[in-house]
Amino acid sequence: MSEKKQPPKTPIRELGKYELIDRLSARFISSNEATLQGVGDDASVACFHEALTVSAQKMSLEGVDFDLSYFPLKFIGYKTAIHAMGQVMAMNAIPLQLLVSTGVSQRFFVEDMEELFMGVEAAARLYGADVTAIDIQSSYTGLSVAVTAVGEGNAGLLTRRCGARDTDLICLSGSVGGAYMGLQLLQREKRVFNGEAGKDRLPDLKGHEYILEQYLKPVLPAALLENLRKDDMVPTSMCLLYNGLSNGVLSIAKASGTGAKVYVDKIPIARECFEYAQANGNDPSPLVAALNGGDDFQMLFTLPLTCYETLSKEYTLDIIGHICEAPAGCTLITPGGKSIPLESPGM
Amino acid sequence: MSEKKQPPKTPIRELGKYELIDRLSARFISSNEATLQGVGDDASVACFHEALTVSAQKMSLEGVDFDLSYFPLKFIGYKTAIHAMGQVMAMNAIPLQLLVSTGVSQRFFVEDMEELFMGVEAAARLYGADVTAIDIQSSYTGLSVAVTAVGEGNAGLLTRRCGARDTDLICLSGSVGGAYMGLQLLQREKRVFNGEAGKDRLPDLKGHEYILEQYLKPVLPAALLENLRKDDMVPTSMCLLYNGLSNGVLSIAKASGTGAKVYVDKIPIARECFEYAQANGNDPSPLVAALNGGDDFQMLFTLPLTCYETLSKEYTLDIIGHICEAPAGCTLITPGGKSIPLESPGM
Repeated sequence: MSEKKQPPKTPIRELGKYELIDRLSARFISSNEATLQGVGDDASVACFHEALTVSAQKMSLEGVDFDLSYFPLKFIGYKTAIHAMGQVMAMNAIPLQLLVSTGVSQRFFVEDMEELFMGVEAAARLYGADVTAIDIQSSYTGLSVAVTAVGEGNAGLLTRRCGARDTDLICLSGSVGGAYMGLQLLQREKRVFNGEAGKDRLPDLKGHEYILEQYLKPVLPAALLENLRKDDMVPTSMCLLYNGLSNGVLSIAKASGTGAKVYVDKIPIARECFEYAQANGNDPSPLVAALNGGDDFQMLFTLPLTCYETLSKEYTLDIIGHICEAPAGCTLITPGGKSIPLESPGM
Repeated sequence: MSEKKQPPKTPIRELGKYELIDRLSARFISSNEATLQGVGDDASVACFHEALTVSAQKMSLEGVDFDLSYFPLKFIGYKTAIHAMGQVMAMNAIPLQLLVSTGVSQRFFVEDMEELFMGVEAAARLYGADVTAIDIQSSYTGLSVAVTAVGEGNAGLLTRRCGARDTDLICLSGSVGGAYMGLQLLQREKRVFNGEAGKDRLPDLKGHEYILEQYLKPVLPAALLENLRKDDMVPTSMCLLYNGLSNGVLSIAKASGTGAKVYVDKIPIARECFEYAQANGNDPSPLVAALNGGDDFQMLFTLPLTCYETLSKEYTLDIIGHICEAPAGCTLITPGGKSIPLESPGM
């Protein structure tokens, strides 16, 4: 949040749209055998041996998905790519190509676009995807980034949301709530930066690296998914968590025509979330952040009860509850044994 | 442009995002055998028999790609989908799935979104694609629409931009410049509507249906491409025209490492373009509209000289010039035989 002296930046019009696209494209030499045509043509081309093509798109908009006053451009490119790839992974497929379109206003410079695409590159490398299309266009109103991930799937491994069955275990790839706490921290420090919290306070992000990373630089549980495939454990249903745990559970239950029980004391919430909440009047509480926060990018999935032993012995994931029949509804079970209806805004 | 009385509209927050997505999704029952998973999951899934997956994305932004004061929402959905599908067709592939993300501010209502998606539906039906993903999110700043088209390709039929060779014929699927003239007309009539052209004048779009349709409701030359495939004529290069004819010729020549000669008197320009230009002080001239206008959505492609007889006898397309060696550059040949360098802004 501090203003550092920067070398002068290059206006995009000075370089021209095509020259800028060429310059950015130079970063992206396709390395997947599947990629037959990368950046530089009308469309991307892939040859998938596993027969299924799995695609997902995410559009990030300034002011809604990110606030540029605290969201570095690199992380916007990174996170939008992670979101699109995560959706492909949530079908138990492998993202292999990324198509990226951006809309930029005159506030942005060539160097800004390079930073944005450095983030896309980092995400693509992390999961072995090729960036195969780049478009840059003018925008009157802020920054928009749309990323499509195209991947390869296998019919026998596909995990839709609709396959959960009564007694299935509800599993979570890792802890939730941290990203939302990170967002709260950034918004708090923005108010400090703007002087709204008294002029003597200085922004302070130290000691909160964990929740900041969860929000700005989330990672996907690709290794866990790979291990499940190796062990021939195909989730009966799966979805990427980006609107909170409640939203994920409800969307799987709705698609599958089932109910679900989630045990509060089984939900993995990082120590750092509790620490931040405690220092900030418990608003939001870590549980609220986990249930109704967003951007966790964990996988929520179900597996038959018979997998219990293998999962608890050989995997570091969390079994947070189980699927039940539809009439029982979707509920949260407190440590004291009380049932509370699971709710998510808009569902 | 006239204000008609409308029944009251429903605020999106009243229905909720998920209910709205459900309502819109109901329109889109997948009909392609290739579509294994349509709307309602993390990602779309397709099974393509022809082995290649061909994908392209187009993002349309308010104020840049469309002006809502004269661009009906239906046509925004339609045209963005056409653009994405056109890019897949430009690889000689068949678009089969559309993924649609929208960002909408509070100005927009449920009925507006229904209108937008009616346009997407019309485009999808026209070319036999399924809409397999719908996302709606908030936007602080106007309307954004991103459409990804995913299609099926065949390795032996793929048409990249880079395959044009010396002496190849340069072909155009239909007339150019009309869309740009349509845009000029709409901008002129917006000024009239706003009273900038004197208060006695009333907007008048009559008699200009052709150029308006070219701009608002373009069609793609899918039948021509199918006929070429049936006749085993695989273009050596191809691209979709959306930034003017010059841009298309230059991008094929650049990718192929060749030059190109285009004959002014061979460029197909509709009578309606000349009529509109004549009535408006020849600004822009029909030739300028054809060369540097945009949104024509014609295919520009090259075929070996040996195809000449078949093309001229059995096809209604235009042969506008030929590829030449790189040192000769890309030139426009006037009816008088003069050579003028082909230019396109930013290239």
